[in-house]
Amino acid sequence: EFRDQSISEAPGSAGQRRAHFLHGPYPATHFGPKACILPNPTSVMHIQDPASQRLTWNKPPVNVLVIRKIRDESLVEPFKELCRFLVEEKQMMVYVERRVADDATLSKDEAFGSIRNQLCTFREGYDDISDCIDLIICLGGDGTLLYASSLFQGSVPPVMAFHLGSLGFLTPFKFESYKTEVAKVFEGNAAITLRSRLKVKVVKDMLQRTGQQSYSREQQHEQNGLLPHGHTNSEAGKVTLQLQVLNEVVVDRGPSSYLSNVDLYLDGRLITSVQGDGVIVSTPTGSTAYAAAAGASMIHPNVPAIMVTPICPHSLSFRPIVVPAGVELMITLSPDARNTAWVSFDGRKRQEIQHGDCIKITTSCYPVPSICCHDLVYDWFESLAQCLHWNVRKRQARLVYKVLAAIH
Amino acid sequence: EFRDQSISEAPGSAGQRRAHFLHGPYPATHFGPKACILPNPTSVMHIQDPASQRLTWNKPPVNVLVIRKIRDESLVEPFKELCRFLVEEKQMMVYVERRVADDATLSKDEAFGSIRNQLCTFREGYDDISDCIDLIICLGGDGTLLYASSLFQGSVPPVMAFHLGSLGFLTPFKFESYKTEVAKVFEGNAAITLRSRLKVKVVKDMLQRTGQQSYSREQQHEQNGLLPHGHTNSEAGKVTLQLQVLNEVVVDRGPSSYLSNVDLYLDGRLITSVQGDGVIVSTPTGSTAYAAAAGASMIHPNVPAIMVTPICPHSLSFRPIVVPAGVELMITLSPDARNTAWVSFDGRKRQEIQHGDCIKITTSCYPVPSICCHDLVYDWFESLAQCLHWNVRKRQARLVYKVLAAIH
Amino acid sequence: EFRDQSISEAPGSAGQRRAHFLHGPYPATHFGPKACILPNPTSVMHIQDPASQRLTWNKPPVNVLVIRKIRDESLVEPFKELCRFLVEEKQMMVYVERRVADDATLSKDEAFGSIRNQLCTFREGYDDISDCIDLIICLGGDGTLLYASSLFQGSVPPVMAFHLGSLGFLTPFKFESYKTEVAKVFEGNAAITLRSRLKVKVVKDMLQRTGQQSYSREQQHEQNGLLPHGHTNSEAGKVTLQLQVLNEVVVDRGPSSYLSNVDLYLDGRLITSVQGDGVIVSTPTGSTAYAAAAGASMIHPNVPAIMVTPICPHSLSFRPIVVPAGVELMITLSPDARNTAWVSFDGRKRQEIQHGDCIKITTSCYPVPSICCHDLVYDWFESLAQCLHWNVRKRQARLVYKVLAAIH
Amino acid sequence: EFRDQSISEAPGSAGQRRAHFLHGPYPATHFGPKACILPNPTSVMHIQDPASQRLTWNKPPVNVLVIRKIRDESLVEPFKELCRFLVEEKQMMVYVERRVADDATLSKDEAFGSIRNQLCTFREGYDDISDCIDLIICLGGDGTLLYASSLFQGSVPPVMAFHLGSLGFLTPFKFESYKTEVAKVFEGNAAITLRSRLKVKVVKDMLQRTGQQSYSREQQHEQNGLLPHGHTNSEAGKVTLQLQVLNEVVVDRGPSSYLSNVDLYLDGRLITSVQGDGVIVSTPTGSTAYAAAAGASMIHPNVPAIMVTPICPHSLSFRPIVVPAGVELMITLSPDARNTAWVSFDGRKRQEIQHGDCIKITTSCYPVPSICCHDLVYDWFESLAQCLHWNVRKRQARLVYKVLAAIH
Repeated sequence: EFRDQSISEAPGSAGQRRAHFLHGPYPATHFGPKACILPNPTSVMHIQDPASQRLTWNKPPVNVLVIRKIRDESLVEPFKELCRFLVEEKQMMVYVERRVADDATLSKDEAFGSIRNQLCTFREGYDDISDCIDLIICLGGDGTLLYASSLFQGSVPPVMAFHLGSLGFLTPFKFESYKTEVAKVFEGNAAITLRSRLKVKVVKDMLQRTGQQSYSREQQHEQNGLLPHGHTNSEAGKVTLQLQVLNEVVVDRGPSSYLSNVDLYLDGRLITSVQGDGVIVSTPTGSTAYAAAAGASMIHPNVPAIMVTPICPHSLSFRPIVVPAGVELMITLSPDARNTAWVSFDGRKRQEIQHGDCIKITTSCYPVPSICCHDLVYDWFESLAQCLHWNVRKRQARLVYKVLAAIH
Repeated sequence: EFRDQSISEAPGSAGQRRAHFLHGPYPATHFGPKACILPNPTSVMHIQDPASQRLTWNKPPVNVLVIRKIRDESLVEPFKELCRFLVEEKQMMVYVERRVADDATLSKDEAFGSIRNQLCTFREGYDDISDCIDLIICLGGDGTLLYASSLFQGSVPPVMAFHLGSLGFLTPFKFESYKTEVAKVFEGNAAITLRSRLKVKVVKDMLQRTGQQSYSREQQHEQNGLLPHGHTNSEAGKVTLQLQVLNEVVVDRGPSSYLSNVDLYLDGRLITSVQGDGVIVSTPTGSTAYAAAAGASMIHPNVPAIMVTPICPHSLSFRPIVVPAGVELMITLSPDARNTAWVSFDGRKRQEIQHGDCIKITTSCYPVPSICCHDLVYDWFESLAQCLHWNVRKRQARLVYKVLAAIH
Repeated sequence: EFRDQSISEAPGSAGQRRAHFLHGPYPATHFGPKACILPNPTSVMHIQDPASQRLTWNKPPVNVLVIRKIRDESLVEPFKELCRFLVEEKQMMVYVERRVADDATLSKDEAFGSIRNQLCTFREGYDDISDCIDLIICLGGDGTLLYASSLFQGSVPPVMAFHLGSLGFLTPFKFESYKTEVAKVFEGNAAITLRSRLKVKVVKDMLQRTGQQSYSREQQHEQNGLLPHGHTNSEAGKVTLQLQVLNEVVVDRGPSSYLSNVDLYLDGRLITSVQGDGVIVSTPTGSTAYAAAAGASMIHPNVPAIMVTPICPHSLSFRPIVVPAGVELMITLSPDARNTAWVSFDGRKRQEIQHGDCIKITTSCYPVPSICCHDLVYDWFESLAQCLHWNVRKRQARLVYKVLAAIH
Repeated sequence: EFRDQSISEAPGSAGQRRAHFLHGPYPATHFGPKACILPNPTSVMHIQDPASQRLTWNKPPVNVLVIRKIRDESLVEPFKELCRFLVEEKQMMVYVERRVADDATLSKDEAFGSIRNQLCTFREGYDDISDCIDLIICLGGDGTLLYASSLFQGSVPPVMAFHLGSLGFLTPFKFESYKTEVAKVFEGNAAITLRSRLKVKVVKDMLQRTGQQSYSREQQHEQNGLLPHGHTNSEAGKVTLQLQVLNEVVVDRGPSSYLSNVDLYLDGRLITSVQGDGVIVSTPTGSTAYAAAAGASMIHPNVPAIMVTPICPHSLSFRPIVVPAGVELMITLSPDARNTAWVSFDGRKRQEIQHGDCIKITTSCYPVPSICCHDLVYDWFESLAQCLHWNVRKRQARLVYKVLAAIH
């Protein structure tokens, strides 16, 4: 006799199994009196409900990476305060980027000298700290989190992000109460959102290259520095670059004035050709960034999906689409494209794509575990309102005249 | 010692477990050297990968419901052919709605008389056939599938839908090869898409009603006929109506010229107020229907999500949003709304919503198992192109002049 | 020898003629060495530059119509103040609608009694005041101006509109300084915007009517009361209704759940068919109202144009269009439409359109002369920002931390 | 006694003056019994109704410039045919660009040799032919017309544009019947659309330049070659470049990955700041080009307006706007912009904009007189349908089954 596939898969869960999750309820698997889904144990997924995900520590955290936006003077004092707190009160080992530690304002401050001497410094692109960080704390805007994501191409430590001034999509915590908030996170049990990333692989066909590659000096520098972040290797004339993005991969016309012309494949099948300024492949996290500017609907970070959004498409009917997180997308130049295209990753590492190259994109198994300030839902809607003024309208000020009357 | 939660949940699956599903890969559950997700066995979901879902039969199907669009003469011949095939060649018991069987064109056709006498007929709203149908076959447009969905408020038998003329989003099969296709489905192993539905509960506060309800006769008729489809009951001055929708619930200003003003709650929290023509809460299936007309991005039916799309919102910044399938949405009139609003379900059963009423919406556990023609992905993109002309552009006709030259 | 057509048309203007106007510069009329526009004196337009238009009085104004939003208690005091000022200080004859004068709050106020006795009252739909009003003053929202427009189907007196509380698109003046502002207008020389209106003619084919017209009582009442506002007459089975609208004509599906299906003609030629919730034909003034909600770009009121905007069109590629003010549009039901459509005029006088009826729309020669608070350009951009939050963004609050630091 | 201003301005036009033009009817200039527009003869515009504009010849045309898209082999034969027709049958002097005449395919064709020897050739950027061309004939896509426009920075000869293959917005004529069509144009009286252009002035503050300008070689080449097309001069450390564009001026982030940040002024007043990929200032002609891709509504070429469209704006509420043709727009880098911006003109002459530079944009008095195939209205709607698939939908194929039935 037939039994519910999903139930039979859940060991010893008879009494305790919940019927409803953030991904939705268990769908019925019988359809009418005689039909059902063909059971297939190897294809059953076991995923912990995103709404129930909380962070815990196997061992007490020790190494904290502090990232701050550079060139923003208003962050200097909060940064010093935070370092002092972590080092002196919490006895943490604090990592900062060398150029942050060497910042003139910091190095001139004698009162901060003793703390500064205890900081561990590293250089992006030279020192690999990806295996020794227990917690990341960001100060500044959403860019700090994108930067943090770029430092960790594999597993990412939990990230706690503070905004100074105005709320960001990725920076839910207010700095005012940082001591309490950081202490709570050290204690464990914080709510987290696993923000999916995209794994992007660029395969370049070097044999087709004619040698006269015109990388600017800046681009070459970026590529040199890129080794620790993106795994690169070459074999048989192919160069492969692999990167994780938190927001989006953008393929566009770069400095050219001409339309880009790229083909989009999904699971190996040509889906459509993009003629226009380019195309954005984004995570739900990225749906509120560049994709929103290009007209996309906004997707909650816990929806397992990938968004494809054209940039100024030549066709009036090219609406953005949302596809399941498990597909593989591929982008190449269209065979009849006269111009090259350019790809960038969370706005960085811009490079040219030529005929013969291809870009493969799938959901990564290394999400960014982003610590929630309130919870998954509240944080997101708060950001929509604060960052994007989503549906913020002027309420009719009914009481104004009363004030006016009092004045007269 | 800590072990991967998801792995420990999968019994005896060490060798065979796949790492990648349509919902995406298993996300890592360790974050850096010391952090991980707090294991919580009761919140682990076990879902069969949508991409692997195939239909099978516990017992051979016998009872087939055939639905056809009425008032479309071009469907009469295909309908007769199909009935003859099912009854005579396949020995099925064929159910049709009485008004279909009583259609003048059919009853006058003597050659079809013997088949017609073997059809089982039922009347919508009076006879409940929801427990005895093994397979549904639709002939016509997407409307036939919405109608089929409305007949089955609980478990829905598998649906096989044919388009005559032009492809529909929900009707992937061509009628030309119906014999082969139907035979294949009877054999089992067809690929299916579980199209999620929304369970919508309308709770009306009858005590607040002032009696002078102005339902038109047509609406009253619809409500009378509604009992078998929506479960209705009244207790302590509340009347509850529950319905499953495949496309969307629409709350709008109805016949009024004035803006509707409704509040939207998500998991009990006020998210935003909608001022405009209304709001659409849709499934991914519905994202290519009315929601697309209202400006939404289009979502593949296998993304577990609910879409919220404003209709002509007063605010320029009210972009559509996509939330996880597992949330509960609630809609009420805003406290300061001067006008009522109207709700409809897949375009049907339109009724008024007043102060004190509320509409609760969650993902249903009874999806519509819709049989694929090719597969999940191909069928959807084919529909986007054929039904919505998605990014269909004119290719430069390079060869035209050659023809021209030949003529001269 | 050929001479510039436009120059030869301007009598005695050699020295003083300006070369640049709000509508743009005079275009050259010679094209290369040998081509030119064929001169055609009968087709030369003589229009005063909109940017230079100022209001003047032939005789001192005496009769002032004061319009206020009813059912808004906060307007009672400003209304009384304004009436007292006009009657006692300015010796004006003040007209108000009878239901405004009879408002309980007003009639109970003994201190206001003597002023109230001097007000001239009229009833909408019974008393025609369109020939005796010198100036209109509006208190409230944009709706008061739409209402004022509906009272004057021919020439419209200048309108001065105050907002209480929040700025409206059509109500630029602040009430706080009303005495000064009104005095300035009486003095003459105020800058005005001629807001174009649309002349809409609905021709109903009564012979095709089957008699069972289902107007609700409310609609019949509106139609009865409509005579003074819209010119109606019937001949040979046709009933014609003519109305001027300031914002837009909307043709939609009305209370029906089904798509409307109408054909759009421009200067007698079928341009396109509209399948969707409906279509909006709006003035530039209306482009920031319902049309903006439906996705239109926003047009400055001094652009001589008509905007056509679909409402939730079934087609992804149905973008709004802007056509020259001088065209004639016509809308009918599509021959194969199964449902009727409904038309409304600035949100009022909603009525059904059936097969055989048609709606003809052209720019009216009776604009609404709307007195500017600052000037044409400033007023409009101020409204975009205040009413629609047009491109209002959050500036990075750079100074926040300094405040924070001071607290610590 | 007061008389209608516009009437008093029209000499001897009492009997013949028309009341209705493409720009709309004459608006009433009296408002109620006592108000009117202050007459101001110096500000009256005299413009010939666009709908009545027809082309005529002062002397028979002799010099014809033929422009064809290069690198498109399919155009070689039509080009040769046309040249032969113009030279041999019509005895015209035909001008072509030297690289067109030197094209290998042409020079190898001996049969074409005698014609080729009679062609006048010129080099773009070196030879100025702007004073000696009577008619321009374009073969190819819309790009040929943009190119023609760039060659004539002052008065533009009439342009007749043929499409080969698929209809373009600017190329209404079919090549099949070119002989008849060209003959008709030579006869005179062709309907024309005056397509307005924008006069764009870029003022660069060279004193603020730090010397390390990083123009690529390609850009320098373009700038060198630019002299005959754009008037350039330098005074007191300012370099001014002036250009006419037919479609649009685009200010964008160029090759940078960072948002551009520019301020937009209208008639000297700061209107808004643009944060995003950039901004498009376009003519109505350009509204169906890049602006349409960026989401603008589409404007008929005879509406006297300028369109401002943001490109992927950071703000959800930044809708495109349409302002009167007579305004002056100015764009500068925002004072706090960290990156430069880039400007391009109809997709050409891309260059960097730095702090201290500004771009001034007004409607030019030199429109492109574009010869209509049918008329102003028909041509435009035909292009919308053919080029942009505007609201092209699939009609239900009702007859399909009959074909099917016949097959069975």
